[in-house]
This record gives sequence, structure tokens and C-alpha cells, in this order.
Amino acid sequence: MTPEQIQHGILQGNPAVQRRAMAKAITLLESTRPDHRVQADALLTSLLPHTGQALRLGISGVPGVGKSTFIEALGLFLTRQGHRVAVLAIDPSSTVSGGSILGDKTRMEQLSVDPNAYIRPSPSSGTLGGVAEKTREAMLVCEAAGYDVVIVETVGVGQSEIAVHGMTDMYCVLQLPNAGDDLQAIKKGVMERADLVVINKADIDPHAATRAQAQITSSLRLLGMHGHPEHAAHNEQLWQPRVLQLSALKAEGVEQFWQSVQDFRQLQTANGRLARRREQQSLAWMWERIDAGLKQAFQQHPKVQALLPQVVGEVSSGRLAASTAARQLLAAQAGP
Amino acid sequence: MTPEQIQHGILQGNPAVQRRAMAKAITLLESTRPDHRVQADALLTSLLPHTGQALRLGISGVPGVGKSTFIEALGLFLTRQGHRVAVLAIDPSSTVSGGSILGDKTRMEQLSVDPNAYIRPSPSSGTLGGVAEKTREAMLVCEAAGYDVVIVETVGVGQSEIAVHGMTDMYCVLQLPNAGDDLQAIKKGVMERADLVVINKADIDPHAATRAQAQITSSLRLLGMHGHPEHAAHNEQLWQPRVLQLSALKAEGVEQFWQSVQDFRQLQTANGRLARRREQQSLAWMWERIDAGLKQAFQQHPKVQALLPQVVGEVSSGRLAASTAARQLLAAQAGP
Repeated sequence: MTPEQIQHGILQGNPAVQRRAMAKAITLLESTRPDHRVQADALLTSLLPHTGQALRLGISGVPGVGKSTFIEALGLFLTRQGHRVAVLAIDPSSTVSGGSILGDKTRMEQLSVDPNAYIRPSPSSGTLGGVAEKTREAMLVCEAAGYDVVIVETVGVGQSEIAVHGMTDMYCVLQLPNAGDDLQAIKKGVMERADLVVINKADIDPHAATRAQAQITSSLRLLGMHGHPEHAAHNEQLWQPRVLQLSALKAEGVEQFWQSVQDFRQLQTANGRLARRREQQSLAWMWERIDAGLKQAFQQHPKVQALLPQVVGEVSSGRLAASTAARQLLAAQAGP
Repeated sequence: MTPEQIQHGILQGNPAVQRRAMAKAITLLESTRPDHRVQADALLTSLLPHTGQALRLGISGVPGVGKSTFIEALGLFLTRQGHRVAVLAIDPSSTVSGGSILGDKTRMEQLSVDPNAYIRPSPSSGTLGGVAEKTREAMLVCEAAGYDVVIVETVGVGQSEIAVHGMTDMYCVLQLPNAGDDLQAIKKGVMERADLVVINKADIDPHAATRAQAQITSSLRLLGMHGHPEHAAHNEQLWQPRVLQLSALKAEGVEQFWQSVQDFRQLQTANGRLARRREQQSLAWMWERIDAGLKQAFQQHPKVQALLPQVVGEVSSGRLAASTAARQLLAAQAGP
């Protein structure tokens, strides 16, 4: 398929052609070959006017919290209502193991064969930044193909959760009804980013779930108390994070979950925060990739590579101040 | 004073000469003139063999927690025991207000006239990274001058607390006996970094203080539960963060505080963690300054400056993908 055929397939193809074109596009975007990268950027720019209509939903939670079961239940609920659902993932551990949290599609048995669902495992190479970039670009491909709900899943690891928060409209955290679990989430800065907290497996111990719900609600109130960096204008209606109970296994609470998502979307569209969040995300992402690119070019510079081992040794042993070392290395790269 | 005279004054001067040489050295280190920077780096390298003997103590806490009162009580306690105490500060807000948390020395009335104490306000220009760099270098000057306890103070703002943690041997957080106060600290990632938590103003409401102590102790236990990134070797003795009550105003609990600091230092020296922490801090700091330098050079590049406004506009309006934009700007800087 040529890039033009891929573009055409994504925008106008029949279901089978479109699925193949999406896979081709994502493979092209994941390629590290410079000529592929040029084609991929051209493809991305041509698809961009057709993106942005979907709701982007981030889902995170520690292993064992039941994310796959929840996403399958939600996905099937949505496709039954006529939505088209894409599920993507960011799993930095897959770059180490070569595996992927979504590699084994049997984990979402029914959703993976649903013609209105598209499941793509986490890219499995590169740094977290690289993995997140590929997921972000795959999200745009799915949107151009007309998927109107894009779910980005991540495992409970601090940095990848921040990456998912940075590319979605609404960020949901799944929790177990355990003491300590919410403290971990607060510690990692996950809780303060949550637009919605879902206490999963609520059916197993309803009392514990209700206790956890009260505790997290109170934590969220305390966390919000000392002022958000983004101050609200007078009279502006702001979203208050909600805490829901749910049983993904029994598909109980999925409808209420989706109602909260709708409420969130309506409010954030009306007050302009959804558009502003996307704009800020795009610019933050651009700078993040620039920083990564600058660092990579620095580390690959021959003069830096020649000097670095010695400088690191001197800094480690306390013979050279860290700030002086930084200036020496920067001068080596910039020098004639 | 020539750089040689400054160096000599710091290392061998009588008290009056030394104090003047320290002030000159720190002023030189804070200068942005390129020729000063060269002299400053040479001075720093010449002082470096005489540094590293002090205990570096980081102190943070929200405004109103009583940091100045505590540091004055601690400083006077230490100078009475024959220690020489330097007090430095990182206050990024001073770059905005032009003021400084330690600018008004009357806040530490007795300590500021103590011949064995040296108090230096926060540098008041530049980014947080720049301010932290100057404080870090000032710390080395104090150590070379024979100060054996260096206290680095910061106000309760997330990023500057992380900077102080990144340049000290032991990181202490002052808390008020308030519900919610500890949650805020957990949220900002302050609590998980704490080696010692001090509940100040314990005399005002002993019951609340005891409740807070129990609550924070339990939070620390839960936060530590899910495994630290640095895993301990088998049988290795590790420091367990402590929670103390104190009344800085009445100077009650200062001795117990200092005993904990001694215990910490002894353990961390014996298990090698103090040396390793300093080595890691230096290397992390070097990379932090390199990143900042790379970004500055990028933003000042004429081709980047020419292209940036247009690219930012296209990314904001969704016409250009963030990752494509990053590649375009990086190519502009690298191009012929």
C-alpha cells in the first residue's frame, strides 16, 4: 500500500480495507527508518483534519485491579449502543519483556472479535517517551478512521500514567477497595489527576468498597482544597472528580460510569476546558519530544561521547562540580 | 579580591576575611558574565577537594509551619556545641517578588549575629534550576570554609522541595498537626522523600500532635510498603523514616531531633548510602543542567526563533501533529 492508498483506506475504505490500512499506517508510524518517518509525518498531517471528534478516555490502575475486564465490559456496552471503540495501550515494561499487556488478545475475548472495536497492543520498543508518541499517533489514526471512543490503557506505573493523562480528555483511575491503595495513588500523583475514580470489584466486599469510596472522596476533597494551579474564573462551572463503585466482572455500574463520562464531556465542552486541555497537551507534548530529541543528539555527539566517561568519573569522585561538568560537556558539543 | 585571594581567604582567612571572601565567592558564582563564569568554575574546582565533610540537611515545610524559628533554635543549639552552621535557601518565588524568605535576617535575630553561623538568602534571579544551582555552589563554598552543618531551607512548593532533596544528605519535612497537611505532602511527593518528619508547634495542641504523629507514621509505612525503587540488599540495615514532635518556639525536642540526625548519619555512612546518595545527586544534577542548557540553546537558535511562532500556532489549532512539529523544529536547529 502506498501512503495515498493507506490514507484513502483509512478515510473511505470498507471495514476490511480500513482495518488493514490502519494496521499499515500504525506500522509506518512505528518505523524508525528515516524515509518511513517522512512518509509517516506526511500521512499524519493529511489525517489530522479528520481527527479530534472522538472522546479520549484514559484508564489506569495497578495490575490485578481488573482493567481488561472493565474495558471489555465498557467496550461491549458501547458497541451495542452503536459506538466504535478503539483500545490502545502504553506499557513501558513491554519494551523490556518484548511482551505487552494487550498482546494477548484473549484477555478481551469478546471485544477483540467485535467488528466495531479495534484493539492495538502497546508499541514494544524504545523509551517511554517513544512508546507514548507512537500511541498518541495511533490514536489519531483511529480517530481519522471514525472511531468515536478511544480508550488508552496503562499499567500502574507512575510515568506512563502521566503520559496517558497527557493525551486523554478524561482520566479514570481504577482502584481496589484496599486501604493503602489510594495512598499509593496519591503518592504517585495519580489521584490528583483523576477525573473519575472507579472502585472495582465492589461486589466482593460491599462494606470495604463503601469505606474506600468515602475515604477517597474525602482525600480528593482535601487534595483539591489548597487550590488548583488552574484557578477557576468566577461563576465558572468546574468538574468535581467523582468516585464510583463498580463490578466489571458482573458488568454492574458500567452504565453509571458512562453517564459520568457523558456529564464530564458536556461540562468540559460547555466551559471550554476540553479544547483548552487538548491544546495544552499538544504543546506540552511537542516540548517533551523536543527535549528528548535534544538529549539524544547530545548523547550521540562524538565529542560528548569522547569526553563523557572521564567527566562522569570526575563528578562521581567529587573532583569536578556537577555544574562545571555540565558546562564543559555543553561547550564540547557547541565547540568548533 | 582576585580569585586566588578569594580562595585563600576561604581556606585560611581569619573570621572577618573569610566571611568577606565567602560573600565575594558567592557573588562571583552568581554572576552571569561569561568571564566571571570561567573564574567561578576555576574557583569551584580549586575549592572542591576541601568540600564534602559537612552534613547537608534539607528542611522544608509550608509557610507558617515555623521553619525560621526551628532553624534558629537548631542553629543556636549547634553553635553552642561547637559546630559551625551555614543556612542557605531556595526560594523560587524570590525570583518573582525580588524578595527572599531569608532576606530579612531579623527572622533569625540571634543566629544571624552568631559568629559561628553564616546565613545567606536565596539567589533571586533566574529559573528554579538556576537558583538551585547557585545554592548548590554556595553550599560548596561554605563547606570549604569549614562549616560542618549546612542547612538548606525551602518553602513548601513542590519543585523546590525536590531540588533541596536532590542536594542534601538528609531531608526533613516540618508539618503542622493538621489533618490534610500530610495528604498535601504526600500529593507533592514530599512525604515519600522524607527521612525525618517533624510535627512542629506540638505544644499548642498535644492531642492533635499525637494524632498527627500516628497518622503520618502509618502513612509512611503504607507508602514504603509497595517497594522502594532502590531495593535493599539482604541483611542491609536501612534507615526507617522517623516522625518526631517538637516545639521550636520553646526549643523543646531540638536535642532529640539532632540525635536522630546523628543516628541517620551513622547508619548511612556505615551502609555506604550517604556516599552513594551524593554520587547520584551529582550525576543527576549534571544531567539536569545539561538538559536546561540544551533547551536554552535551542530556544535561542535564530532558525528556531523564526519558525516557532508559526509552528506553535499550527499545533495549537490542530493542523500539525505535536510529534511532527518537534521533528521540524529539531531539523531547523540541526540544519545547514
